[in-house]
Amino acid sequence: MTTHQYDERLHNLLRTAADVFAEQGYHATSMRDLAKATGMSLAGMYYYVRCKDELLYQVQERCFLSVLEGARRALEASTDPGDRIDRVIRHHVTFFTEHMSEMKVLSHEADSLTKERQDSINQLKKEYVTLLAQLIGDAQGDAAKVDSHVAAYALFGMMNWIYTWYDPAGRVKPAQLAEQFSELFLQGIKSPTAPALRHGG
Amino acid sequence: MTTHQYDERLHNLLRTAADVFAEQGYHATSMRDLAKATGMSLAGMYYYVRCKDELLYQVQERCFLSVLEGARRALEASTDPGDRIDRVIRHHVTFFTEHMSEMKVLSHEADSLTKERQDSINQLKKEYVTLLAQLIGDAQGDAAKVDSHVAAYALFGMMNWIYTWYDPAGRVKPAQLAEQFSELFLQGIKSPTAPALRHGG
Repeated sequence: MTTHQYDERLHNLLRTAADVFAEQGYHATSMRDLAKATGMSLAGMYYYVRCKDELLYQVQERCFLSVLEGARRALEASTDPGDRIDRVIRHHVTFFTEHMSEMKVLSHEADSLTKERQDSINQLKKEYVTLLAQLIGDAQGDAAKVDSHVAAYALFGMMNWIYTWYDPAGRVKPAQLAEQFSELFLQGIKSPTAPALRHGG
Repeated sequence: MTTHQYDERLHNLLRTAADVFAEQGYHATSMRDLAKATGMSLAGMYYYVRCKDELLYQVQERCFLSVLEGARRALEASTDPGDRIDRVIRHHVTFFTEHMSEMKVLSHEADSLTKERQDSINQLKKEYVTLLAQLIGDAQGDAAKVDSHVAAYALFGMMNWIYTWYDPAGRVKPAQLAEQFSELFLQGIKSPTAPALRHGG
């Protein structure tokens, strides 16, 4: 098997595992269920992961690494604070509208990993929160009214909650969704009676 | 048993069930586990609910009814669109920082109910989303840049995600959290370089 084949099969295993975990829950899923869903043999799966916990870990780790790497790449193209936030929002939303199962698994199965693997995932989460909080701090400058970490978690909530309601094939396309989230997060819904606008904004 | 005693015991049963479901998951929890956690006998619990599914339903239903009723009450005091959104945000955040287990259960166990009960809960959810979307539509007026339903779900995401990260006993108090979410949703993080401000806001 070439490295390319190895990577492709592992990739397929992880995506299918994410779908099955999202559909029926991690604890209710057996390696046998996953063999059936992937069309792989049990021995074939154990060639890639030692156990179900490692599989869940790899789903979560790959997902966070991809999204972090993509966010960093998206940031390289701009130095404008508002624009940088916009870029990260677009990247995150686009990525996860294509990975809704992974998003549900990251949210519902965060506590299902063994302690050590959970710590390792939490480290990646922390990196991502810190990155967002820094961008938000830069964009708010000295006039900050909202705590950067609160704002970062608010933004993650806004974006990650979509697995509960959003249909990428529906009326609002992923690119539009990202645009609207960006508008909302940077500008608010701009109530004409909200304080800043009432007082001459 | 008086009606008051009945209500109080049912209330305690539902709160404890929410804690246990949040901690170990609905499917992994037996009525026996719940008897142990509540200190009630199995027969005592079956006096209140016919089965575990009904218990999960009652946890979810009570929670949505309370939060909807509270939101409507909060709205009575004001006719100003921005202020009305602010009131609903404060009510929702305050309610759920006191009901973090229920919040996790509402999110993780939405699919665990039988079809008919799920439909009934979805009806309540829809009412709440519609209420929020109307408020947002009123606040945005004709200048609406963000779809009211997208904005409503974004707001729910921002507020509901807190069960994954927020500690009510930590640095940011619930009232402050609500205030910051309200500021963020109505005004955005107000990047000094964001378009509306760059062009003379």
